Amino acid sequence: MTSDFGYRDPFVGTMKGAILRINPSATIIDLTHGVEAQDILGGALSLATSAPYFQSGTVHLAVVDPGVGSSRKPLAIETEDAFYVGPDNGVLSLAAGTSRVIRTVVLSNTDFHLQPTSSTFHGRDIFSPAAAWISRGTPVQDLGETINTFALLDWPAVDRCGDSLIGQVVYIDHFGNLITNIRVSEMSTPLDDLAITIHDTTIQGISASYSVAGQGNSLGIFNSWGLLEIAVCNGNARQDLGARIGSKVDIIRP
Amino acid sequence: MTSDFGYRDPFVGTMKGAILRINPSATIIDLTHGVEAQDILGGALSLATSAPYFQSGTVHLAVVDPGVGSSRKPLAIETEDAFYVGPDNGVLSLAAGTSRVIRTVVLSNTDFHLQPTSSTFHGRDIFSPAAAWISRGTPVQDLGETINTFALLDWPAVDRCGDSLIGQVVYIDHFGNLITNIRVSEMSTPLDDLAITIHDTTIQGISASYSVAGQGNSLGIFNSWGLLEIAVCNGNARQDLGARIGSKVDIIRP
Amino acid sequence: MTSDFGYRDPFVGTMKGAILRINPSATIIDLTHGVEAQDILGGALSLATSAPYFQSGTVHLAVVDPGVGSSRKPLAIETEDAFYVGPDNGVLSLAAGTSRVIRTVVLSNTDFHLQPTSSTFHGRDIFSPAAAWISRGTPVQDLGETINTFALLDWPAVDRCGDSLIGQVVYIDHFGNLITNIRVSEMSTPLDDLAITIHDTTIQGISASYSVAGQGNSLGIFNSWGLLEIAVCNGNARQDLGARIGSKVDIIRP
Repeated sequence: MTSDFGYRDPFVGTMKGAILRINPSATIIDLTHGVEAQDILGGALSLATSAPYFQSGTVHLAVVDPGVGSSRKPLAIETEDAFYVGPDNGVLSLAAGTSRVIRTVVLSNTDFHLQPTSSTFHGRDIFSPAAAWISRGTPVQDLGETINTFALLDWPAVDRCGDSLIGQVVYIDHFGNLITNIRVSEMSTPLDDLAITIHDTTIQGISASYSVAGQGNSLGIFNSWGLLEIAVCNGNARQDLGARIGSKVDIIRP
Repeated sequence: MTSDFGYRDPFVGTMKGAILRINPSATIIDLTHGVEAQDILGGALSLATSAPYFQSGTVHLAVVDPGVGSSRKPLAIETEDAFYVGPDNGVLSLAAGTSRVIRTVVLSNTDFHLQPTSSTFHGRDIFSPAAAWISRGTPVQDLGETINTFALLDWPAVDRCGDSLIGQVVYIDHFGNLITNIRVSEMSTPLDDLAITIHDTTIQGISASYSVAGQGNSLGIFNSWGLLEIAVCNGNARQDLGARIGSKVDIIRP
Repeated sequence: MTSDFGYRDPFVGTMKGAILRINPSATIIDLTHGVEAQDILGGALSLATSAPYFQSGTVHLAVVDPGVGSSRKPLAIETEDAFYVGPDNGVLSLAAGTSRVIRTVVLSNTDFHLQPTSSTFHGRDIFSPAAAWISRGTPVQDLGETINTFALLDWPAVDRCGDSLIGQVVYIDHFGNLITNIRVSEMSTPLDDLAITIHDTTIQGISASYSVAGQGNSLGIFNSWGLLEIAVCNGNARQDLGARIGSKVDIIRP
């Protein structure tokens, strides 16, 4: 389960109750419910970077859903590796896009919705029941009408300018580490003479670990998501470098 | 499990350890541990609105307990639908009051307490063991002395004044949505010409979804708890309207 | 599981996925992931005070790891009661030190690491797989080379000066309660005439419960960890007394 429901309210717990009523033997794991409110890209990235570490056949339920109750479609997507359930606003797309999609279904069969169905909490009334039924083996196509596409998310492009790259911060974690949209595979070697600039800080080369940079120094590192990350050793790069989602990151080979 | 223990400390995890030592096959679900410190009404409301979504026979353990170690009684309540374990300060009462109460017991049998029993953490030493034993099938009456009543919580009344209602905000969720004590069933139709006033904001009618109001606009909506909620589309009503728990909400039919 | 990963990111959820891929029937319990970033003592204390409440044979996975990717060793420690997995920086030492250590192993066998192994997230790539294999019954010695010692943590000493004790605040919980390094067993009786001083607040004697001190009054109490705690009845001692980790606490017998 992934959501922006936070930890103050009983919303996530209620969804788990609804799941266990349908499938009492379900193993339910929280990816995170700390996605920034209505941050679809943050939710999509959390899901896409974590889903490969789960067992094949896992049902991933992701609810970051500013359009709840509107005409945006509730979806289930079956891929070769996993199932994805959530709103059709892109939150599922980065994860579902990493393997072959077998089928996409609009959760239109109200027999599988809780009754009465609220207009403010489809997580409880539509998405959780769908995920629970799929986890029990109900074929996805029983849950509604099959469609051909789902909403894709704009993954911000990296600009290439000769030997230089211009990317941006797409995610900031709890430690203040700045995760960019620059994939390790996009960076040319050798890495030692690269200069990474964010705001008015310039970092030389790529570090092998956080601690090698020395206490309080900023560094670039290839992170566990396969992306370039900017961090401060034992510090908080977001605060120390004054960065935010969208901050520009230049990589220049002199 | 519901509590105001938050997520910084190992208190909830310790309680789960204590439960699993007694019943290793228990399925433990967190409703929330983010209840405001010592907010008995918030905890009671979280429990009461979520419990109906859980399987019959679920043991609900709720610890919002400013009187821990004092003379307030530790309770187990058996109803037709579920079991409730927690302090006798009202936190169980909204949920337990929704179905027929079979038996109320003071957890006075120290054979079922962890030893030594602290005076600061009955969640670990008294409530968790009781919940675990009940989940294993121990009859509630074995845990202590049967009594006839339990503390009730004051649910703030809605004032009716001709066609107008005066209610208040009783809960504010993580998104800043303002949940009132006004039940949907109390509101007279037609809904379109109702004027909802909170502080100096007036909202016309009831919206069918958050998004129909348009970006940044405030709206009234019937929420998933069956209560009138005041929200801001893609915004935070608590901040935008300057509201707090107890803020007065007027509903006027002109 | 105990960590400083917080609740905003999918890191903990990813680790759980990695565990369940290896041992699908594992029961996974969160102690807390709200340890202050890189606060090794806080993590060690959370683990040590909670581990005794878990079943014998539990695998405790603790990741507070500012040195990830450096030369600090990844460890598994087997004791008579439990297994501990985490970095060799002291975070395991308070808990592992409470019972007889049978074996300490460096997790050097890369057959048990996820591949590719990142340099920023050993929680996912090294520690979680080790914990999962141990929970399946893999002998600890298969995971790497046996060693003789592990890093110990400095537990700040209590100074004794005649009948007086000088201790300090070592942990502050979510309620703002100030937990000191002074063990109950170190305090001389009678307790009634002891004067506890922190900053410019002096408290007389030890209270039997939080509520006995009366609304808004500060109090000393023996807490559920067997330590002297300073609290404010229905208040927040950290805020009200201006205290922090390391604040000096004097206990004087007049």
